[in-house]
Amino acid sequence: MKKAQAGDLAMLTTESGKQFIFPLEAGADFQCHQGVVSHNELIGQPWGSEVRTHLGHRLSFLEPSLRDILLLIKRRSQIVFPKDIGYILLRLSAGPGRTMLEAGTGSGALTTAFAWSVGPTGRVYSYDRREDMQDLARSNLARVGLLDRVEFKLGEVEDGFAHRDVDAVFLDLPAPHLYLAQVRRALKNGGVFGAILPTTNQVSELVKAMQGDGFIDIDTCEILLRFYKNVPERLRPTDRMVAHTGYLVFGRPLLERTAES
Amino acid sequence: MKKAQAGDLAMLTTESGKQFIFPLEAGADFQCHQGVVSHNELIGQPWGSEVRTHLGHRLSFLEPSLRDILLLIKRRSQIVFPKDIGYILLRLSAGPGRTMLEAGTGSGALTTAFAWSVGPTGRVYSYDRREDMQDLARSNLARVGLLDRVEFKLGEVEDGFAHRDVDAVFLDLPAPHLYLAQVRRALKNGGVFGAILPTTNQVSELVKAMQGDGFIDIDTCEILLRFYKNVPERLRPTDRMVAHTGYLVFGRPLLERTAES
Amino acid sequence: MKKAQAGDLAMLTTESGKQFIFPLEAGADFQCHQGVVSHNELIGQPWGSEVRTHLGHRLSFLEPSLRDILLLIKRRSQIVFPKDIGYILLRLSAGPGRTMLEAGTGSGALTTAFAWSVGPTGRVYSYDRREDMQDLARSNLARVGLLDRVEFKLGEVEDGFAHRDVDAVFLDLPAPHLYLAQVRRALKNGGVFGAILPTTNQVSELVKAMQGDGFIDIDTCEILLRFYKNVPERLRPTDRMVAHTGYLVFGRPLLERTAES
Amino acid sequence: MKKAQAGDLAMLTTESGKQFIFPLEAGADFQCHQGVVSHNELIGQPWGSEVRTHLGHRLSFLEPSLRDILLLIKRRSQIVFPKDIGYILLRLSAGPGRTMLEAGTGSGALTTAFAWSVGPTGRVYSYDRREDMQDLARSNLARVGLLDRVEFKLGEVEDGFAHRDVDAVFLDLPAPHLYLAQVRRALKNGGVFGAILPTTNQVSELVKAMQGDGFIDIDTCEILLRFYKNVPERLRPTDRMVAHTGYLVFGRPLLERTAES
Repeated sequence: MKKAQAGDLAMLTTESGKQFIFPLEAGADFQCHQGVVSHNELIGQPWGSEVRTHLGHRLSFLEPSLRDILLLIKRRSQIVFPKDIGYILLRLSAGPGRTMLEAGTGSGALTTAFAWSVGPTGRVYSYDRREDMQDLARSNLARVGLLDRVEFKLGEVEDGFAHRDVDAVFLDLPAPHLYLAQVRRALKNGGVFGAILPTTNQVSELVKAMQGDGFIDIDTCEILLRFYKNVPERLRPTDRMVAHTGYLVFGRPLLERTAES
Repeated sequence: MKKAQAGDLAMLTTESGKQFIFPLEAGADFQCHQGVVSHNELIGQPWGSEVRTHLGHRLSFLEPSLRDILLLIKRRSQIVFPKDIGYILLRLSAGPGRTMLEAGTGSGALTTAFAWSVGPTGRVYSYDRREDMQDLARSNLARVGLLDRVEFKLGEVEDGFAHRDVDAVFLDLPAPHLYLAQVRRALKNGGVFGAILPTTNQVSELVKAMQGDGFIDIDTCEILLRFYKNVPERLRPTDRMVAHTGYLVFGRPLLERTAES
Repeated sequence: MKKAQAGDLAMLTTESGKQFIFPLEAGADFQCHQGVVSHNELIGQPWGSEVRTHLGHRLSFLEPSLRDILLLIKRRSQIVFPKDIGYILLRLSAGPGRTMLEAGTGSGALTTAFAWSVGPTGRVYSYDRREDMQDLARSNLARVGLLDRVEFKLGEVEDGFAHRDVDAVFLDLPAPHLYLAQVRRALKNGGVFGAILPTTNQVSELVKAMQGDGFIDIDTCEILLRFYKNVPERLRPTDRMVAHTGYLVFGRPLLERTAES
Repeated sequence: MKKAQAGDLAMLTTESGKQFIFPLEAGADFQCHQGVVSHNELIGQPWGSEVRTHLGHRLSFLEPSLRDILLLIKRRSQIVFPKDIGYILLRLSAGPGRTMLEAGTGSGALTTAFAWSVGPTGRVYSYDRREDMQDLARSNLARVGLLDRVEFKLGEVEDGFAHRDVDAVFLDLPAPHLYLAQVRRALKNGGVFGAILPTTNQVSELVKAMQGDGFIDIDTCEILLRFYKNVPERLRPTDRMVAHTGYLVFGRPLLERTAES
């Protein structure tokens, strides 16, 4: 029976489904609209158990999943959604020991997923021009214990990336089509490039630039995630859904042909 | 400049987009409808370069991405699609060092993705009742160098799983609602459970069983992936798409309440 | 230049897109949060012109389209959505001179669309068990000048329909699978039947009943309508959309085979 | 009991769902891969009955619905799909007595739907630059008995339309944004305009032109139709679906403001 320890990241969920994520700290208190629970009571508690607030409301006590962490990230910008992140990880071959480079950092949702997937032997390089966003991302990463896998860099993408031979580069920027030369220089030969773009006009520009710059295996796609109401005898989709977050574009640059080829 | 070595997994792509994945082996030949390339010529070649067949056709030479590996897996059954796998990995918190249990093995697509994501320090337990399917999966895993992370078990799910305290359990079976007790026994307390189901009737049965068995955080969803034609000045979705692979159901079992709780 | 006349149905739209539909009546006043316009000023005004409230706000002055009428119907129940109505009209071959039977009436959205499409030479029969709903539908139909094409009937569907030989029957009821005998008796031989159902469980029951009762050409489908933001240089779908209204099921009963056939 | 008469439009459907539409003609023969049925045998037969070919195969005998007619139209170009036509009819307020203008004619699918919906008191004007397409559309309309409601015009849209004060104009052309002046001149004041466009680039151009030309109530949307397999105890969507036909754009031109307004 695994039990929670001080320093662990914990999640409490109310009966109505509201979730709270925080690190366990001896002597601290958790507080929400349903009452208070002391961390001391949570420390030593088995994961998967139910606890009660001082007002008697039930809360379930779990380790947050990666999805929970991503959805509850503190944000000051639109984050990349879990539905898109799952496919990005796959398409970029994120995994243990890999090196991933991204720009911009934003609130750090994708940064968090990259850091999770590359593990302690991998490395994430995250670029942004805004210090306040990187501070936010840094604090989000620190809270979930993944900060030591990430190196943040402040600067303009047009000035190029300081890193070389990374396994994959992902751009979440308004005009990624302007930075393919910078992408090429950072990427290992044969690496994978991806971008997320809210508008069709941006997609057209990026795909055109990639085709002109020797990228192959270009995919443009969008992912729709539809949830169902959990009423087994009246199964039906929810009434409303997210209709759009962004278009995903992926591709891989071939080595530039030399004169004789 | 990273160069291919004997033993590496390689991918050749024709100009029309057809892909071939194989391990490099000194003295062997690659053959397709566009001609022959000797592995000796590929060994030592930089990744991301172009090579030519003996007939002069251009092929691009890349390491396969995880997505490529999954799509080109040898199959004798419907595989779980990359669009679903990406979200499953996220939802089950797959990652370095984790232990994942699945049943059934099938052709081993999800097994491969689990093995990729848990890394050398993680572990995948894969159950199936059919030896021929596990042989196929084993050969698929071996080909991509991930076999040593996977332990295959032959047997009926109703007889229970031999493993305990795994981080996540995923069922790709016709009647997962019958095996929640087995899932609970294998799963660590607070772990995550998921399943993929082609029909709405199965979803109703599973959600009902999970609700009756103390699972919380239940999500039922489906993922639609829509590709676009890569013609920047005439951007539009492809004419046809995959409309359905399966419904995904996730949830987490709370510890069973004892009499006094 | 067509001009508005007393008695015409008119629509005023604010610059932010809010729409109001009402019949023009000499001496009356239109009032909204942007001010007042007297109907006398609107009568004689060309359709498609702009008018101003007494506060100087611009309103556009148009005849409402069928879609506008359907969206602005006064409702006390979920209405059938325009995205579904368009396809229902087509699938049931609604058109000039046809006779359409529906149950239940609800707020009368589909009733309105049927009445519109059958024209003055057609006929709509609308059944409901609730008098208050039929009163609401009657007032909605009257307001748009289509009431004389519709015959309302109060009663339980299980008691059967009073009409015979109608071209099409449409059921918007919780358990249409119970009433296929009643549908057959009302429908002309070779007519078309349809239903809208919110849940997959209901679809299963209805399709099973139709297959057991000699219906052919059975189609089950759902229609998703996705809107785009009208910003040409940043074209993208709206952030959220209606994910589900109902499943549509259509079919046609063959004549029951007699003993010798 | 309604029985088929010579001259009626009839549809035969095989047990596997294949459909055939043709007018009944005394002395003629219907022939398909399942055998022969003489029209004389069909004339006088009740609609909704089953007939047999000379080889003993069962066929169901029905009047085709509007949807059937549209799907089985003879085509030499991509037709507008029923899923889109239903919504177009609604959005353009097609109905008895209306006048609808379209360009181009194409194979005549939308022309057919317009002719159906406006009835004998309405009128459809259909423009195309290609005589061969109009001949095809004319023969399609004639076959289903709707030709007398349609007036075909050969010519270039840039030369303008000969008709004035029509209720709605619909363009199915590559560059509708070039012809808004022509649309305005043909449309009654306050009328409705629509277009179907396969690419996002065309949508951007059209919406931009409409916004610059005083159109209001602009909607850009796409319609996705997803079918389900009719197996009640294993209900699920079909494996594949049509992912894209075209984007629909609608709007209404306001009267041009004169200098003082």
